[in-house]
Amino acid sequence: MTIKLYCFGESGNSYKAALALQLSGLDWEPVFVDFFGGETRTPEYRANINALGEAPVLVDGDFKTGQSGAIQAYVTEATGKFGGKTREENYEILRWVLWDNHKLSSMAGLTRFLMNFLPQDKRPQEVIAFNQGRLKAAYATLNAHLEGRDWIVGDGPTNADLSCCGYLYYPEPFGFDRADWPHIDAWLDRIAALPGWKHPYDLMPGNPSDRA
Amino acid sequence: MTIKLYCFGESGNSYKAALALQLSGLDWEPVFVDFFGGETRTPEYRANINALGEAPVLVDGDFKTGQSGAIQAYVTEATGKFGGKTREENYEILRWVLWDNHKLSSMAGLTRFLMNFLPQDKRPQEVIAFNQGRLKAAYATLNAHLEGRDWIVGDGPTNADLSCCGYLYYPEPFGFDRADWPHIDAWLDRIAALPGWKHPYDLMPGNPSDRA
Repeated sequence: MTIKLYCFGESGNSYKAALALQLSGLDWEPVFVDFFGGETRTPEYRANINALGEAPVLVDGDFKTGQSGAIQAYVTEATGKFGGKTREENYEILRWVLWDNHKLSSMAGLTRFLMNFLPQDKRPQEVIAFNQGRLKAAYATLNAHLEGRDWIVGDGPTNADLSCCGYLYYPEPFGFDRADWPHIDAWLDRIAALPGWKHPYDLMPGNPSDRA
Repeated sequence: MTIKLYCFGESGNSYKAALALQLSGLDWEPVFVDFFGGETRTPEYRANINALGEAPVLVDGDFKTGQSGAIQAYVTEATGKFGGKTREENYEILRWVLWDNHKLSSMAGLTRFLMNFLPQDKRPQEVIAFNQGRLKAAYATLNAHLEGRDWIVGDGPTNADLSCCGYLYYPEPFGFDRADWPHIDAWLDRIAALPGWKHPYDLMPGNPSDRA
């Protein structure tokens, strides 16, 4: 049975899950969630798809879960891919996925939303500037960690990489410029060279031009 | 060998790890991290304890990991406590731990810091107000989920509970009032009634009166 991923192109959190599915070779298809049309806030979405009103959500037969990190763990359980080779590596992967949720993707997703998807006159400039400062510290941490390494944990791509890269391929400005962070830049090229890789707007339905 | 947890009392992220250790019955001791004295930013701390410059960090003999969610997973692996009874429960726990890192503890910790631990004239009011709005949505999600349930997942306390409660016992104001959220309020009492439970300032060294 084909796995369904409820997702939308603008969502880096959806992208983390979609990319894991895509690169794993599992049989999956995206189901478009009309986030910008308010779908995740409807009673129907909360009753039938996700009580938390979030995307992504994975449905595989009777099994359903949300949160990109849980979906990535499911892909690893199903395929053996993108997990660690040792117990220590598994903890390192979990640590980086949690760090990403705490410090990187959460803040990048929010800041990109505020800077690009809110009406011009509703964009909170002090919040945006503050968040960009927080993000700069996160980019510095990741960039330093990637110096002299190809991948965040171990010697191949894992869920740590597929999590931390979630918002970093998007073209909309949010204060991240690859040229400022050479080790992140090279690592993003490395991920993009993996067989089957696609840009978020090519992997999932929905992108800003739909609403232009 | 006694497990060491590098932590400090003001840190709700440290509390999540300390509470799991405490309630599990493992032999552990806190090692005070002088965060407010700048210890996590020193080259020594980054070289010897945590390259990411964060607390908490668990050290158990040769094993070391950071991020409260990874430490909780380690406690569960060591003791069988606070994990799920089924595969589905395990995914639900991971989902809520990730949600907490993404939406609740990350934002609560930041907002409490800005409102209480920055000098009065350095507190960014627009950021604080914005974050409180985001947090209100998170409290509403958690409160709704806890309606009619004793615990976030399954029929007993799990890492989902020990994660989401991380910042909710602290006395410093950050826009959270238990009286506004009756199901969260009752659940916090339920956690506090577990054998061995302690308030963060009783469980870990360091609290604001040290700097008064």
